[in-house]
Amino acid sequence: MPVNSPLPIPSQLLPVKGIQLGFTQAGIRKADRKDLLVMKLAPTATVAGVFTANRFCAAPVQVCKSHLSATAVKSSLPIHALVINTGNANAGTGESGLAAANATCDALAKFLGCEAAQVLPFSTGVILETLPVDRLIAGLPSAIENLTEDNWYHAAEAIMTTDTQPKAASRQITIRKQTVTMTGISKGAGMIMPNMATMLGFIAMDVKVTQPVLDQLVKEACNRSFNCISIDGDTSTNDSFILIATGTSSLEITDTGSAEYDELLQAVVSLAQELAQMIVRDGEGATKFMTVTVEEGSSIEECRQVAYSVANSPLVKTAFFASDPNLGRLLMAIGKAGIADLDVALVDLYLDEVWVVKQGGRHPEYQESDGQRVMKKSEITTRILLNRGTASATVWTCDLSHEYVTINADYRS
Amino acid sequence: MPVNSPLPIPSQLLPVKGIQLGFTQAGIRKADRKDLLVMKLAPTATVAGVFTANRFCAAPVQVCKSHLSATAVKSSLPIHALVINTGNANAGTGESGLAAANATCDALAKFLGCEAAQVLPFSTGVILETLPVDRLIAGLPSAIENLTEDNWYHAAEAIMTTDTQPKAASRQITIRKQTVTMTGISKGAGMIMPNMATMLGFIAMDVKVTQPVLDQLVKEACNRSFNCISIDGDTSTNDSFILIATGTSSLEITDTGSAEYDELLQAVVSLAQELAQMIVRDGEGATKFMTVTVEEGSSIEECRQVAYSVANSPLVKTAFFASDPNLGRLLMAIGKAGIADLDVALVDLYLDEVWVVKQGGRHPEYQESDGQRVMKKSEITTRILLNRGTASATVWTCDLSHEYVTINADYRS
Repeated sequence: MPVNSPLPIPSQLLPVKGIQLGFTQAGIRKADRKDLLVMKLAPTATVAGVFTANRFCAAPVQVCKSHLSATAVKSSLPIHALVINTGNANAGTGESGLAAANATCDALAKFLGCEAAQVLPFSTGVILETLPVDRLIAGLPSAIENLTEDNWYHAAEAIMTTDTQPKAASRQITIRKQTVTMTGISKGAGMIMPNMATMLGFIAMDVKVTQPVLDQLVKEACNRSFNCISIDGDTSTNDSFILIATGTSSLEITDTGSAEYDELLQAVVSLAQELAQMIVRDGEGATKFMTVTVEEGSSIEECRQVAYSVANSPLVKTAFFASDPNLGRLLMAIGKAGIADLDVALVDLYLDEVWVVKQGGRHPEYQESDGQRVMKKSEITTRILLNRGTASATVWTCDLSHEYVTINADYRS
Repeated sequence: MPVNSPLPIPSQLLPVKGIQLGFTQAGIRKADRKDLLVMKLAPTATVAGVFTANRFCAAPVQVCKSHLSATAVKSSLPIHALVINTGNANAGTGESGLAAANATCDALAKFLGCEAAQVLPFSTGVILETLPVDRLIAGLPSAIENLTEDNWYHAAEAIMTTDTQPKAASRQITIRKQTVTMTGISKGAGMIMPNMATMLGFIAMDVKVTQPVLDQLVKEACNRSFNCISIDGDTSTNDSFILIATGTSSLEITDTGSAEYDELLQAVVSLAQELAQMIVRDGEGATKFMTVTVEEGSSIEECRQVAYSVANSPLVKTAFFASDPNLGRLLMAIGKAGIADLDVALVDLYLDEVWVVKQGGRHPEYQESDGQRVMKKSEITTRILLNRGTASATVWTCDLSHEYVTINADYRS
């Protein structure tokens, strides 16, 4: 059961002109589940992405990067389709894995009448096992057959792995009196950590955005959403966040310095944050949604470092799971964050509105009963003030429960 | 139940001339358990220590550092006694915590007829709570009353927190035809990570070692033992490893370049590794003892970085708990270690003697049944070859089980 994250309502997921989605059951790993998704884009579309920082990045990630950089060079070859499979990550598979990812692109390109370099492949699932590329390719015609603009909910279901529910949301904003519609989906529940969170995320919008502007937009949006979450501190081999501007409206964004760019960025960040938070709310075994905010640091980097040290600490996470205000563990996690010159005598800490630590020690008026009251909630904000600068950062995470161990001790069975 | 770690046998723990140990039940946190230990040293003793890198280092750690540096300056004030309490870490306690640690030293100094600066205080337990210093001081006379050289087993019991059994071992070696006897104790079961592992470790030996030589010896021994373990990647506020040379034998080590120094170092490292591994074997909820060795790296630092990335990965640890050869998770953990220029196409990986990954991909002859066979063992070595240099490093860790969550969700209750 995700934490305060109701199921998306299919009728509230808005179609985005210029992108069609088709899915099927290809039997990649298990029978009777949607595991293959195709997205087909209008010829006017631009596409940009951010990918995992894991050095063992999967074969499809390598192919995506190569095809996207070819697009950038040869604008005559815009990205025309995306293909996503679950059940197998095609990572740690060496040369044969690369061949399988390329064969997938070749096959889809033939079916759609474009070049292989116009296809982006994505995989998620078990690492170090051979992708059953024949079954994948055999499934493509059936996925292509049901391509439609209305399939966002099914698409969100088709990319699930250990997710307990599909993740999808839409936004509509008005820029220069024109309506911009955007819809996104995401997946991911474990192996979640920044750079990037282990996840797939796709957002499409019907505005026209030039390639360099979209490249900038996807990075900014990712840094403020998917790169601010953690479930277990592990970083997957397959993380990908893709932003698609289908270019089907007459509105065009060509300048990152414009007011229109800012308005679009705000909307994309808002949608990306919702999708990213859905991943945390559905984190493996999650029972609590935790916001960790670090303020008054000397740099954003050090604020993120402290926030992640807290968010990834198993002892902090188990205390939250237990609703136990064992808040000394928060100090431990701040202290071990690796800020060599941190003066802990300046640190203040709040749990929601409760002032727990003042100048590095227990606040004289702090009562355990107040900490206990906050810890019982399902959503809790830990606010840490370093009192040494003006920078701040926020990270979203979840607790560590028995269910996390159960899920990850059984994942492949 | 610790992993392959039988209870120490009291009669095999050798007294070390020049150090007496006394314990009592002071009721620091819970009734009816030994929670206070006093060690009294011969006037000839030298003492050196290594302490936590956590910026929120506890009040007793601050006092220890100050008293040890005073010793170094004024050799007329050698360390005369150590006092250790469990049940309360005296960390995150600000100025009043410092006052409590100093009051402890004052009181013990008065009882023993020395100066407060000749006493080293240690605490372990809950963070952010006030140390009940009155109960601690009230317990000192009873601990002093039973000071004897034979109390090592009781001493090991007296410093336990979530440990399921006491940790102690002895060594006897011959240097220059003289017998050197050393005995050590350790504690720690969670909040364990390098710099330092969350733990207390004390080793005493009856040799005479000059202060600068002992300072070097404690660092070298720590780097090859307590700084090579991890249970959960968290770093405590109170870690301390103390090496005591009681100076009661006629053998004196005065030169770090001598053969005698090397012989002594080997013995201390061997004992410290055994004590450190006892901590891992008794790791909270541990069911497996894992050795992670990284070889052929370009520096020891990068080997340690990769080894810790694997050792601390929750997904790796849960796979080991499940005896599931889901070995792609090992690649994930190698890839996320932060080695920016790592060429994964050079990486080989062995599980015990089974060659799993060759040149970055699944070895063509690797059979899951072989991986399964190794994963079922209670002691497993993961050997990673980076094939880019000559450096190597080893880290010892344990798996992540349901029991870890249970223990840490209940620790304070």
